[in-house]
Amino acid sequence: MPADCVFCGIVAGHEPASFVYRNGEVVAFMANIPVNPGHLLVIPTKHVTTLSGLAPDLAASLFRAAQRLCDGLRRSTLRCEGLNLFLADGEAASQIVPHVHLHVIPRFTGDTFELNERGGVTRSVDATSRDELELAAAAVRAGLAA
Amino acid sequence: MPADCVFCGIVAGHEPASFVYRNGEVVAFMANIPVNPGHLLVIPTKHVTTLSGLAPDLAASLFRAAQRLCDGLRRSTLRCEGLNLFLADGEAASQIVPHVHLHVIPRFTGDTFELNERGGVTRSVDATSRDELELAAAAVRAGLAA
Repeated sequence: MPADCVFCGIVAGHEPASFVYRNGEVVAFMANIPVNPGHLLVIPTKHVTTLSGLAPDLAASLFRAAQRLCDGLRRSTLRCEGLNLFLADGEAASQIVPHVHLHVIPRFTGDTFELNERGGVTRSVDATSRDELELAAAAVRAGLAA
Repeated sequence: MPADCVFCGIVAGHEPASFVYRNGEVVAFMANIPVNPGHLLVIPTKHVTTLSGLAPDLAASLFRAAQRLCDGLRRSTLRCEGLNLFLADGEAASQIVPHVHLHVIPRFTGDTFELNERGGVTRSVDATSRDELELAAAAVRAGLAA
């Protein structure tokens, strides 16, 4: 675990995060700068920089967790009429934090997040406080338990 | 299999496609309108509309195939310095074809495809001919076999 990896710091509890899911291999928490309320990141607990370094079974666990989280978001009180999964692998693909992470983004009609050949990507929320992130995390956890 | 599903038509061989990978559960082919050369779609062979309808093991197979295809793209002659994985689940998330599909998009420094809070998404290529798609598919298949 590299001392300067913010996601390893989150896994270890040294960095603040609002958790929604954890098993032995994978952990999920609220994105600190969400594009929509409920935006989650799913990561391997182990430090792996890129997708090609992820053991196939761990990659499968990551995706299974994301699928489960999608169901949790749909059952939550957060607005979620659809979902995007997004992963950036490598700097050329806009990967910022060098620890594999899969974005799970709840979508709703009229949000400002876009991904198509003409549209731009904009956040529907401004900087979000930790209290707001904790409330969203509680809503997702309730959805997962429902 | 709904008669009007274009992806089921591709699986059945009734619709044109340039294939790169197939196993019992999953098939991958070139996107007909790529955002970058080498843009792939990975789908379950079985008709499943949304992520929540996908059996977890099949979801895991889909992602494992995508990971393998990423490695193939990196080893291919196509420009691939990074990769994006993208899945749109539901109309509100911009899902157009109602058959689960995971986008695998090779990225390179200076391409015009963007996904961030300020940028737009643009294609780096115009409409691509079937011959060009077949050439790209051959390059990916060679990368997979390397």
